[in-house]
Amino acid sequence: MRVSELSQRSGVSIASIKYYLREGLLVGGAQTATNQAVYSEHHVRRLRLIRSLIDIGGLSISHVRATLAAVEDDSTSIHDAFGAVMHGLDQLPDEDEPVEVKTAYGEVQTWLADRDWNIEPNAPAPHRLAELVATLRRFDFPIMLTDFDAAADTVERTAKAQVEYARAMPDRTAAVETMLLGTVILERALAEIRRLALEAASFRIDRDK
Amino acid sequence: MRVSELSQRSGVSIASIKYYLREGLLVGGAQTATNQAVYSEHHVRRLRLIRSLIDIGGLSISHVRATLAAVEDDSTSIHDAFGAVMHGLDQLPDEDEPVEVKTAYGEVQTWLADRDWNIEPNAPAPHRLAELVATLRRFDFPIMLTDFDAAADTVERTAKAQVEYARAMPDRTAAVETMLLGTVILERALAEIRRLALEAASFRIDRDK
Repeated sequence: MRVSELSQRSGVSIASIKYYLREGLLVGGAQTATNQAVYSEHHVRRLRLIRSLIDIGGLSISHVRATLAAVEDDSTSIHDAFGAVMHGLDQLPDEDEPVEVKTAYGEVQTWLADRDWNIEPNAPAPHRLAELVATLRRFDFPIMLTDFDAAADTVERTAKAQVEYARAMPDRTAAVETMLLGTVILERALAEIRRLALEAASFRIDRDK
Repeated sequence: MRVSELSQRSGVSIASIKYYLREGLLVGGAQTATNQAVYSEHHVRRLRLIRSLIDIGGLSISHVRATLAAVEDDSTSIHDAFGAVMHGLDQLPDEDEPVEVKTAYGEVQTWLADRDWNIEPNAPAPHRLAELVATLRRFDFPIMLTDFDAAADTVERTAKAQVEYARAMPDRTAAVETMLLGTVILERALAEIRRLALEAASFRIDRDK
């Protein structure tokens, strides 16, 4: 299909499609003899994914680019591709971390080992979690990593289901796309559920007084 | 203290302080006879809160403004102030929702009623959750609201603890600030834990093959 039909099918404007092509979020269509690009179902699906990640998941263009790079790279194992998706969602700290973040990072590593969660040494998430714990402590929240145990037990079960669901996809591209979308959208859903739980909890405290 | 000391104490540049004053995120200091503004400990704490919400929590300036407006408004009950904080983190849909989002919204309302979670009719979170569910379904994820039951049970317990902790603060400003910071930082922490759980789950599947 031509770019006009691609725009219609995906619901994304031609200007946005050209922007995503320039930014490397979308690979170009096949060139025809008349020097026009022809697009496939793959492009329709990819555009819907990009829009969902940006509009619904709240991801930035650079995060979408970093995570989609993992989808394209066929040379890695599926586990490494899933890892690259996770790592693309965060950034490694670009400078020396303050001492209280380093302390929290050590606690995160111990906690991960206790849970038998095997995480790549270059994963940004343990650094980000350490930074969040240090922030809470700076505001006098008395937080320990073990306070997250119950939540971690719950997400451990749903994570297994999500990974198995993604790995059962018919091809590698669909598997990695499914993993990315599921991760971003489900963590947003969990955040919304948490906000609802907080409002409900506050209501109950007043009611039961 | 003068603005130079406020900058030093909070670690926020004078240019950023002036920007936050213009944007209404920070109330001005008291004017002295020499027509200089004098700032208090309240400003130091507020600046640290603003920076944590933006840098660590990833909030936009407009979301920070919307939620902090709830902190300043003394005329509402503490429950309404907490609600305003939650509602400031999201936006109500500004146009008619697609039919599949409306369907999901009905399911969200039923699910909330089943859980006995009392939510204000003007809360954006049920709309956002419906949108996320509809997005997952558009990509053929077979998701039902009851799939979130286990996660909701867990966050229900931690939400109660967070609300009680915030309400025990010595004054109203501290209570609402604590609620806001706890909500934003803890939901980011939960998202990072979920990403770690996904990487760990993928590793286990390969190992146990």
